[in-house]
Amino acid sequence: MPAPIEFYFDFSSPYSYLASEKIEAIAAKYGRTVAYKPTLLGVTFKASGMQPLVDIPLKGDYSRRDFARSARYAGVPMKFPEKFPISTVNAARALLWLQGTGSAKAVSFVHKTFRSYFVDNRDINDAAVLADIADDLGIDKNAMLAAIQDPAIKDKLKTAVDESVKRGVFGAPFIFVDGEPFWGNDRLPQIERWLERGPF
Amino acid sequence: MPAPIEFYFDFSSPYSYLASEKIEAIAAKYGRTVAYKPTLLGVTFKASGMQPLVDIPLKGDYSRRDFARSARYAGVPMKFPEKFPISTVNAARALLWLQGTGSAKAVSFVHKTFRSYFVDNRDINDAAVLADIADDLGIDKNAMLAAIQDPAIKDKLKTAVDESVKRGVFGAPFIFVDGEPFWGNDRLPQIERWLERGPF
Repeated sequence: MPAPIEFYFDFSSPYSYLASEKIEAIAAKYGRTVAYKPTLLGVTFKASGMQPLVDIPLKGDYSRRDFARSARYAGVPMKFPEKFPISTVNAARALLWLQGTGSAKAVSFVHKTFRSYFVDNRDINDAAVLADIADDLGIDKNAMLAAIQDPAIKDKLKTAVDESVKRGVFGAPFIFVDGEPFWGNDRLPQIERWLERGPF
Repeated sequence: MPAPIEFYFDFSSPYSYLASEKIEAIAAKYGRTVAYKPTLLGVTFKASGMQPLVDIPLKGDYSRRDFARSARYAGVPMKFPEKFPISTVNAARALLWLQGTGSAKAVSFVHKTFRSYFVDNRDINDAAVLADIADDLGIDKNAMLAAIQDPAIKDKLKTAVDESVKRGVFGAPFIFVDGEPFWGNDRLPQIERWLERGPF
C-alpha cells in the first residue's frame, strides 16, 4: 500500500480550498489516499517572515482577482467570504478531535467546513457554525464543542502546527507525496505526474 | 489583429525564464505575438514590500528545489547559476536599445540572454558577456555597449520599470492578455484557456 498524500492546509486558505476539491480524485486515480493535516498559517507565516497575501501592496489586489479566476478555471464554486482571513483554530481543533475518534466523517467535515466558509460566507471559527456543520453530518455536536475547549486537543493542534513548521510548511496547501514537497494549488499537475510516473 | 501578449520579466527570474521558453508557442497557436517588457524585480519588490524568494526562510530552500523540478516538468534545460540573484540592469538596457532600433533580433536576444544565465552560468550583467551574446547573434556589440551607458537608454529603463509598477507588476513573469493580469509561470494554463475561449 503506497503512503497517503499528506495535505497540510489552513481552513482560511483559498488555494487550499480549491486543491481540497481536487486532491482526492487525483489520489484515487493512482491508488492513494489523502491525509488531511490542519495547520495555522498565522504561525507558519511568522516562522518564514511572511504575511497574508491580501495584506501585501499590489499583490493583495491581484490575489483576490486570482482566487476567483482560479476557482472558475477549476470549476469549483467560490463566493469570497466577507471576513478574510479569519482564525481557524476552532475548526482545526474540531478536525483533529474527529480524526482522533477514528470517525469516517472526518473527510466530509473537511469539505463541508471549507464550503461553509468559501461558498456560504459563514465564520467557521464560530462554535455555533461548527455545531451546525456537525449536526448536518450526524456528528455529535456537544462532544465536538467540548473537544475544542479540551486542553489535550489544544495541545494536539499546537504539536501539529509545530510539526508542520519543522517540515518546512510555509504556506498552504502544502502537499507531500512520498516525502517530496509541493506548495500550492498550482502544483497539482506536477503531483499528478509524480503519481503517474514517479520521481522526476 | 489581436493585441500582443505583454510579458513583463526580469532576466534574473527563474520562472520568467521557464515561461519565456513556452509563451511564444502558446501565443502563435492563437494568432498572437509576444511583447517582451523588461523590468527590475529589485524595484518592484520594494514597491510591494517583498524580497527575493531564496532569501525567505523555509520558502528559499523550497524554491530552489521547485525551480529545478519545474524546469524538468516543463522539459526546459536549467542549470542553476552559482551567482543568484544578480542585477540585470545592463541586460535590460541592452534589450530596450535593441527593441528601439526595430531589430528583428530582439526576441533571439531575450532567449540567448536567459539561457546564458540559466543554462551556461554566465553573469549576464557583465558587459563582456553581453558583447559575446551580441556577437553570436550578429548584433553590433559596440553599439550595444555604448547603449547600456547612454543616459537616454538608462532613462528608458527607469520609465519602463516605473510603468510596470504602476500596472501592478509585483513579481515575474507578469503577463497581460487583453489587459487581464496573470502572475507566474503557473498561470500559462489559464492564459491558454483565455486565448482559446476568451474571458472567464
